[in-house]
Amino acid sequence: MELNNASAEQLAQWEQQLAAEFDAIKAKTLSLDLTRGKPSSEQLTLSDSMDGILKGDYTTTDGVDCRNYGGLDGITEARAIGADILGVPVTNIMAGGNSSLTLMHQAMSVAHFFGLEGADSAWSKEETVKFLCPVPGYDRHYSVCEHLGIEMITVAMTSTGPDMDEVERLVAADKSIKGMWCVPKYSNPTGVVYSDETVKRIAGLGKIAAANFRVFWDNAYGVHDLSDKPVQLASIFDACVEAGTESSVIQFASTSKITFAGAGVAFMAASDANLKGFKQSLGFMTIGPDKINQLRHAKFFAPEGSLRAHMQKHAEIIKPRFASVLSHLEAAFGDNDLGEWESADGGYFISFDTKPGLAKEVVKMAGEAGVKLTPAGATFPYGNDPKDCNIRIAPTVPTEAQVDEAMKVFVTCVKLATVRQALAG
Amino acid sequence: MELNNASAEQLAQWEQQLAAEFDAIKAKTLSLDLTRGKPSSEQLTLSDSMDGILKGDYTTTDGVDCRNYGGLDGITEARAIGADILGVPVTNIMAGGNSSLTLMHQAMSVAHFFGLEGADSAWSKEETVKFLCPVPGYDRHYSVCEHLGIEMITVAMTSTGPDMDEVERLVAADKSIKGMWCVPKYSNPTGVVYSDETVKRIAGLGKIAAANFRVFWDNAYGVHDLSDKPVQLASIFDACVEAGTESSVIQFASTSKITFAGAGVAFMAASDANLKGFKQSLGFMTIGPDKINQLRHAKFFAPEGSLRAHMQKHAEIIKPRFASVLSHLEAAFGDNDLGEWESADGGYFISFDTKPGLAKEVVKMAGEAGVKLTPAGATFPYGNDPKDCNIRIAPTVPTEAQVDEAMKVFVTCVKLATVRQALAG
Repeated sequence: MELNNASAEQLAQWEQQLAAEFDAIKAKTLSLDLTRGKPSSEQLTLSDSMDGILKGDYTTTDGVDCRNYGGLDGITEARAIGADILGVPVTNIMAGGNSSLTLMHQAMSVAHFFGLEGADSAWSKEETVKFLCPVPGYDRHYSVCEHLGIEMITVAMTSTGPDMDEVERLVAADKSIKGMWCVPKYSNPTGVVYSDETVKRIAGLGKIAAANFRVFWDNAYGVHDLSDKPVQLASIFDACVEAGTESSVIQFASTSKITFAGAGVAFMAASDANLKGFKQSLGFMTIGPDKINQLRHAKFFAPEGSLRAHMQKHAEIIKPRFASVLSHLEAAFGDNDLGEWESADGGYFISFDTKPGLAKEVVKMAGEAGVKLTPAGATFPYGNDPKDCNIRIAPTVPTEAQVDEAMKVFVTCVKLATVRQALAG
Repeated sequence: MELNNASAEQLAQWEQQLAAEFDAIKAKTLSLDLTRGKPSSEQLTLSDSMDGILKGDYTTTDGVDCRNYGGLDGITEARAIGADILGVPVTNIMAGGNSSLTLMHQAMSVAHFFGLEGADSAWSKEETVKFLCPVPGYDRHYSVCEHLGIEMITVAMTSTGPDMDEVERLVAADKSIKGMWCVPKYSNPTGVVYSDETVKRIAGLGKIAAANFRVFWDNAYGVHDLSDKPVQLASIFDACVEAGTESSVIQFASTSKITFAGAGVAFMAASDANLKGFKQSLGFMTIGPDKINQLRHAKFFAPEGSLRAHMQKHAEIIKPRFASVLSHLEAAFGDNDLGEWESADGGYFISFDTKPGLAKEVVKMAGEAGVKLTPAGATFPYGNDPKDCNIRIAPTVPTEAQVDEAMKVFVTCVKLATVRQALAG
């Protein structure tokens, strides 16, 4: 299908064919769902042996009784898991509760209301507080900013990460910009891995930005590789040490998509100064994380190499689902310009761009045909995709057969919507 | 020992005797600790079978897979535990994470920064925000207010709860008072159970207070009875319904001192309007609580009556420790006015009042003799006990023999400090 040179008759004919296909699909009354960035049931089952793993021994290697109160930092052996995932020293890691979103909201609340380096450093002391948001990106990040009344400024994602020329220009020019959201590996939703150059330039922002500028580095998919030879993400921690900007970046991760989503362990990695400032506030908010669940994780991943081996099992389960999405996209749009996407080597999403002005229509049509898609616009701050073209596809929860079925519907909807746009134009 | 009519010679003689006793104790180089309101190791062991209790079944009765994301309210069967403890309908309960302190901090943050009934109801919109704090009370409550910059106003605790004449007078006169901290049963530290009259009058505050006034009702010891015939706390929920003030009280509880301290389940009970307002903000803060741990608790307490039976086992373990404290106090001060205390029928503390001006000195002396006590002043906002007389005794962690040893030291310190004060005066 090549629309650019197609005659009106040809377009009308395609429309008729596709509309018939679409009607046939609707008649099937499907109920499929490509919305959720969740592990599938098969993936969750990989960790089922965690319950009961303690066998009555609730004590850490350094003698802490995990059943009782105490300890804001988390237990040593859980912090070691975070240090491994994020590639930082154990002393720069906190192991928290079940949600990295909570840690991120807490960290941003502390930076905003209380200050990470004393009350004078609180963002809310200043008239306007802005945050950079590479787009498309993760709606939960945007909603944290929105909740705190922080103004979001979009910057474009490229195939090597955020557009760093633009980021550097903005950060240097406007000291009311207090940070930037980043998903550096298998970025949600584009799947991009930040290049070494990008990592280095982000570490350099601390030298040109406001003193209380903090990059929120959500490495949610740090070990979620699908390829046997995954791209390596450069260490932002090392890059910051080299640039002398250790406190300008705060890293996050969790085992939510490693063990149990919602019952995992979240991690935060930061400079000594940031950890100190954060814990000063955190001590008012909690009596400490669930150390027992941390100990379960530590025992589960105690054998050398077991975490990576566990992630390979995840990959085996979800790889065919990603492959199905990609093969449908390739078959339908490989030889034309109806859509663009990046092939993801990990993470949880494939990001698809329709021609401008069609994302909402495609999501609506797919919904009518029984295939739920993430609402168009969700990958942009305030739900506003200015070109109305981005759609996030999440293929992990449905089975391979369901993904296949859903993608047939998806490509039909994209084609039909595009043809109708061409006819109308 | 009756100091009032004692001659200077008598006082000097007592001082000499007690100083010798004190020196003898110091020579023993004890290391005892009465500071911590924590369960003892024996108590924690009562719940050891929780790990492994799921036996591979992670699904709730209504079909929720607890291993995956979702659900701000917590699972139905965990909410039922909270409903049972707090005596409210399940629909008015949220089951949260591992810390009721976190829920309280979150609820107060939402009320303060974001508003429980829309942005206009946020306390922080107003020039001054004040909170009533019955004293002596719980230092972690005070620190939440301090963290948020909320001014604390003390009201005296009586044997029936806070001085309600004073509370009503203040609340009616000053609309910048936005709430009050309450530990209604076995109040921390005095052990007082609020009378029916007090509960009713607190429910009535919503009629005379500011519209965004909220009582934070921390029922931390609701099922923590030591007596076979425990005093019944009247239902604040029912009293509020009757008074038409459902939204003026938010209740909290947790299983931290029922199962595992730090790995239990926290609960919040509130009106539909308060829950709605709270969840609007909570949805930005978390992907939901750890449902697996909630399910463990639900299975552990599934048999009818098992929670009460479990609490009786707790009581059997800690009753002798409380009895030891009380018998030492009775023997030393039952026939004189050197100290006052309430006999606790539950909870985690015994509150002791020295003569004015001696609490800091007693805590210091006990520390020198190897017995750690909670810092004097901790039971008052800003750590400031104006009479310097209150000391909180926490006897659950040490063994009965250790409590006995520690209390010998304690009474000696109180006696010696009091005699020295009399000599100096």
